[in-house]
Amino acid sequence: MGEFDLIERFFTRPAVRSPLGSGDDCALLAPRAGMQLAVSTDMLVEGRHFLSTVDPRRLGHKALAVNLSDLAACGAQPLAFTLSLAMPQVDEAWLAEFARGLFALADAHQCELVGGDTTRGPLNICIAVFGEVPQGRALLRSGARPGDDLYVSGTLGDARVALEVFRGTLALPSEAFEAARARMEEPTPRIALGQALRGIASAAIDISDGLAGDLRHILRYSGVGTTLEAEAAASLLACREHVPEAQQLEFVISGGDDYELLFTAPPANRDAVQRAARESGTRVTRIGRIDAERGLRVLDANGQPVEGAFTSFDHFA
Amino acid sequence: MGEFDLIERFFTRPAVRSPLGSGDDCALLAPRAGMQLAVSTDMLVEGRHFLSTVDPRRLGHKALAVNLSDLAACGAQPLAFTLSLAMPQVDEAWLAEFARGLFALADAHQCELVGGDTTRGPLNICIAVFGEVPQGRALLRSGARPGDDLYVSGTLGDARVALEVFRGTLALPSEAFEAARARMEEPTPRIALGQALRGIASAAIDISDGLAGDLRHILRYSGVGTTLEAEAAASLLACREHVPEAQQLEFVISGGDDYELLFTAPPANRDAVQRAARESGTRVTRIGRIDAERGLRVLDANGQPVEGAFTSFDHFA
Repeated sequence: MGEFDLIERFFTRPAVRSPLGSGDDCALLAPRAGMQLAVSTDMLVEGRHFLSTVDPRRLGHKALAVNLSDLAACGAQPLAFTLSLAMPQVDEAWLAEFARGLFALADAHQCELVGGDTTRGPLNICIAVFGEVPQGRALLRSGARPGDDLYVSGTLGDARVALEVFRGTLALPSEAFEAARARMEEPTPRIALGQALRGIASAAIDISDGLAGDLRHILRYSGVGTTLEAEAAASLLACREHVPEAQQLEFVISGGDDYELLFTAPPANRDAVQRAARESGTRVTRIGRIDAERGLRVLDANGQPVEGAFTSFDHFA
Repeated sequence: MGEFDLIERFFTRPAVRSPLGSGDDCALLAPRAGMQLAVSTDMLVEGRHFLSTVDPRRLGHKALAVNLSDLAACGAQPLAFTLSLAMPQVDEAWLAEFARGLFALADAHQCELVGGDTTRGPLNICIAVFGEVPQGRALLRSGARPGDDLYVSGTLGDARVALEVFRGTLALPSEAFEAARARMEEPTPRIALGQALRGIASAAIDISDGLAGDLRHILRYSGVGTTLEAEAAASLLACREHVPEAQQLEFVISGGDDYELLFTAPPANRDAVQRAARESGTRVTRIGRIDAERGLRVLDANGQPVEGAFTSFDHFA
């Protein structure tokens, strides 16, 4: 099967939103009047971002999900994406499943494939995603202010727990493992929540490299510090009952691969935050506050500092 | 050196055009009123698209050039790009040279880096490029009509000759080899010509997989056929005098890696085509005509058919 047959068979669908669809040298996108185009891109490499044994349907889902998660963090509405794919060989069964997972998520968000590239090479999936956000209303990393509440969507740390089970350092009952594994392999981009938070959240980011690591980006861009509540954070671990207490906080704070939204909002917006959570059907938990004092502090239920090396994932560290 | 230090050191520059620059979850782009955004992406894999020994400065140039070439083929003005980079390790000298070549070309076209991704993995460079084109005026593959002239910019086949020298199937005097090698490693995207051809060319594509292969896309999308003039085509090979006559046409027609524009225009636009060529400082050669009869025919100077298997490059064939 040649390159163009492959594209035709697995990745060609009728164009709906793009004036051209895929197939020409460029895709053409036209954001509506008053809209900015939000652009993000992520590259997934076998052995780094996914295990070689991963279900290709889930991989197709995840490759798009991690990109949609960046749109969510900006409060953008998905519009379109491009897919660049390097593969060691053409495996039709693999491609069919990959495309199934990819397009199921794309369809759920009306996000249209408008172009891309395929080539032979070590397995590498690079997606660029495009969304619309009203001019000047994108959620940024830089808007957190002292006194703001700090929130997280969904649950945190379960992807890391699944990774530890694969690594053999942790054992989980099979049902709990499958749930954690689904969190790792099939994350949910918080698109509806991101849009509902426009005008309510003061800053937002998606958690891909771990809570501590991505929180540091908000702190740095906003020029502030933060105090986390250890118990509220630990409660975010869905499989908490199966994880030794000493590790719960570490997995939540330094886990990674969560693709949840981390955001701040002034206390005056507490009701609005909960309304946004309800309307988008997304759990939201307050886990701390923003301080004028720089740095990251973690306090236990008695207000005592919790010690720990809360690191984040770095591909080259 | 960590991932964020690496981005900071080699790939962070002041934002000029993008409201955000790189650094947030998404970059924000706002095409001007009446403009569409043209989007294209290409993935370059070591050993497939470039030799492992290539000068990293030239590789930085080429990685962006092949993407800008797609914008040129649409008649779009470059605006911004994202860079996703997988590398086996952090080689600072390599990165500095890669960035130098990349940004030299980006600056020449006022094309701004607005985001991206870096990760560890087999060397893979994936760029997505964004340009502006007035609504409804993009050059497409589908507009060629019977009777139109067929043109090519610049020279063709020299990149393929350089590859054959690397493969050891051909020998060239060193000066001619260096010129051919520069064509392979440092192609020139025909941005100014592409824009000058808006409203003049009826169809356009950039030649990346070889003249025959990319020509077939125009023929297919436009529902037409073509007759090439063998002598006009062979004259496109800059290093022609050093290549056996029997291979000249093959290298021009089936070469690949040329990144020249292939376009059609009605005979009434001949003066306008030459004016666009002059104004953009780009050589343009008429190499044939578009026919109602489907298929690709090649005629010699006496109007006799030239036989040959004129194939194009396919990454999976």
